[in-house]
Amino acid sequence: MFLMDMPREQLAAMYEATLSDYQKCKDMGLKLDMSRGKPSKAQLELSMPMLSMPLTAEDYSEAGVDNRNYGVLDGAASARQLFADILNVKVSQVFCGGNASLNLMYDTISKAYTHGLLHSKEPWSKLPCIKFLCPAPGYDRHFAICKSFGMDMIYIPMKNDGPDMDMVEEYVKDPAVKGIWCVPKYSNPDGIIYSDDTIRRIAALRPAAPDFIVMWDNAYCIHEFDGEFVPFLNILEECEKAGNPDMVFEFTSTSKVTFPGAGISCFACSEANIAYMKKLLTVQVISYDKMNQVRHTRFLKDKQGAIGHMKKHAEIMKPKFDVVLSYLDREIAPLNIASWHRPKGGYFVSLNAMKGCAKRIHALMKEAGIVMTAAGATFPNGIDPNDSNLRIAPSLPPISEVEQAMQVLCVCIKLAALEKLLA
Amino acid sequence: MFLMDMPREQLAAMYEATLSDYQKCKDMGLKLDMSRGKPSKAQLELSMPMLSMPLTAEDYSEAGVDNRNYGVLDGAASARQLFADILNVKVSQVFCGGNASLNLMYDTISKAYTHGLLHSKEPWSKLPCIKFLCPAPGYDRHFAICKSFGMDMIYIPMKNDGPDMDMVEEYVKDPAVKGIWCVPKYSNPDGIIYSDDTIRRIAALRPAAPDFIVMWDNAYCIHEFDGEFVPFLNILEECEKAGNPDMVFEFTSTSKVTFPGAGISCFACSEANIAYMKKLLTVQVISYDKMNQVRHTRFLKDKQGAIGHMKKHAEIMKPKFDVVLSYLDREIAPLNIASWHRPKGGYFVSLNAMKGCAKRIHALMKEAGIVMTAAGATFPNGIDPNDSNLRIAPSLPPISEVEQAMQVLCVCIKLAALEKLLA
Repeated sequence: MFLMDMPREQLAAMYEATLSDYQKCKDMGLKLDMSRGKPSKAQLELSMPMLSMPLTAEDYSEAGVDNRNYGVLDGAASARQLFADILNVKVSQVFCGGNASLNLMYDTISKAYTHGLLHSKEPWSKLPCIKFLCPAPGYDRHFAICKSFGMDMIYIPMKNDGPDMDMVEEYVKDPAVKGIWCVPKYSNPDGIIYSDDTIRRIAALRPAAPDFIVMWDNAYCIHEFDGEFVPFLNILEECEKAGNPDMVFEFTSTSKVTFPGAGISCFACSEANIAYMKKLLTVQVISYDKMNQVRHTRFLKDKQGAIGHMKKHAEIMKPKFDVVLSYLDREIAPLNIASWHRPKGGYFVSLNAMKGCAKRIHALMKEAGIVMTAAGATFPNGIDPNDSNLRIAPSLPPISEVEQAMQVLCVCIKLAALEKLLA
Repeated sequence: MFLMDMPREQLAAMYEATLSDYQKCKDMGLKLDMSRGKPSKAQLELSMPMLSMPLTAEDYSEAGVDNRNYGVLDGAASARQLFADILNVKVSQVFCGGNASLNLMYDTISKAYTHGLLHSKEPWSKLPCIKFLCPAPGYDRHFAICKSFGMDMIYIPMKNDGPDMDMVEEYVKDPAVKGIWCVPKYSNPDGIIYSDDTIRRIAALRPAAPDFIVMWDNAYCIHEFDGEFVPFLNILEECEKAGNPDMVFEFTSTSKVTFPGAGISCFACSEANIAYMKKLLTVQVISYDKMNQVRHTRFLKDKQGAIGHMKKHAEIMKPKFDVVLSYLDREIAPLNIASWHRPKGGYFVSLNAMKGCAKRIHALMKEAGIVMTAAGATFPNGIDPNDSNLRIAPSLPPISEVEQAMQVLCVCIKLAALEKLLA
């Protein structure tokens, strides 16, 4: 029976039973972390062979360039080729960076403030107000960048095929609206893949700001854990076709392919943007770590090699997601007190609890020894208008701990719902 | 006989002979690069064993932290310890970064513009004019950062014990003067070590700007190529003693210890500055490449290990500097048409040709197939008021090519001087 249809006495009895279950959960004395999308130790082991490949001076040389030395701002040739293959863009559209695409994203925004983007009339720091479109639930670190620069974040609801494009199209008429964050494939946290229609509407936007930027964070471009690689529209090409060639910067990295924090990253954009950014970046850095770039291309080889490597991650990831979903299906679905997505890639399960219950569930989990991403973190300024969304990140703990955490989470979801219905 | 004392006919005869020598130089059809302070292939080989150390998962773990995963913004514990030892500062004063200290320097200035420094009343971008003190000859990439942000660069002449401190003390009375660049040990390009007196006067400055910053680029802190390691005052401690604990950021890296572009870097500053910068940096990056940090500490081990490794570089570097100096001593000194420094560390020999001759010498060299750092590059805005300074960077070419290049350079120095005296 759905919880909201239950008579009050039955709810009260269920509340007592659930409270007792919760007490038992606390008695387990757990200490688990499901807060971040961190790969597990088993996943890290998959890439250890990369570090024991016997590479010589010759291996580090490409087209007459010794990648061990200074220079070659846009990265080792083989690494630019690898990312071009993965993102289905031209090599000339790829700038290969350091260990974090977050860093490249931050720097792009930072340069918009200090120098302006290619089509800026002036640096953003000279403007009284910068607004940014933030589809939510979304990635808290995107919103943290906006907050750090003092932007006004505009909440755009996520639908099942991407951001609410009617709203986006309306907002971009405001010249103070300077950009939008997108995680187009296995969106963080919903695990949604933007539909072709959504992608084409984004590419065809007619923003009032000439320097409007689509921050296309394709973090999970080859991160299927369930099923085969899903081909995906090339946003650079779509923007070009729509007459907006310079409107988009695409980002990705191998942080969740090889090593978090010791991988390689890139941005891809129009050649005009590459030339403009190189003019600014050459003041900041002589080159990123090209030896790590070469090491990666020797190990992953090409797109197929990278996808093959991701299959090994999938073998570790899928059972954990299966546990998450099977618990929710069995314990929560019959009560109709929450909804959730069923992603086939990415790192999260996005759960929408009963309105007004997310913070309470987070607190209950914490009290039982399980750290989850803060309720609200997936929304601009940390404010979930419904206090409903929770991000479940099952990758880091071993599967036995995911089981325990889900057992507790289901009790907490029930308890919070019962508290609300009985209040 | 000094050239300026020669009778005109003798000068004319010497000009003809030198012109003929120059033609022979051109006929050699050289194609050499002495423009940048790049390590040679032989130097790169010294660190290849770092990449074949068989490191396991356990090796990458320190104090319960798996350095292969996300997190630990300020760097792997062992790498912070290594830099603390080398710079003679506390571990709590060290933030370990990525492959380039230039990047950390740029980001520090960039954050001053977008967010302000610890004691800023407002971000620098809100101010009508920012002035920066630029001791020169100096490092062109420092000046490029100033230029990129539109600062007014103020030329401070370099003396034999560091910047002209009378001028510096006068200029800092202007609240628009926000900082100074310093390469205190084996300064780029003069190879000067700042005297203790100069260092203490810098530490004791009383700038009108509360957020005045000393950008202390200690790039060559252990880079002796001639003689033993030279101990050096700790600028952080001196600033603290002088009541300016937050006025300085010190930078260094292993770019010229292990691999250019694949080393590790750090900044060191007061704990208050570390806390402030971490608050800003956590938005930009989750952590720098801690696996590369660990690899470095396993290879270099400690300060003594790093200094020992630098001895191997010295064996390769010193003969090249000897060639440079012996050519200048033999060919140029008797004519008294140039002066130069005799560094015991660093990467350059700084040459001061006759006034008005540097650009001409650079052009003559280029015509003979040898690329040198552009004349003027060592001064703010690329303008050497005397058109006299040239930076000789002998590290990259093999010694036989350094010989050839110096042979040609001496001819060019003579030819330019003769042209001037005969004009």
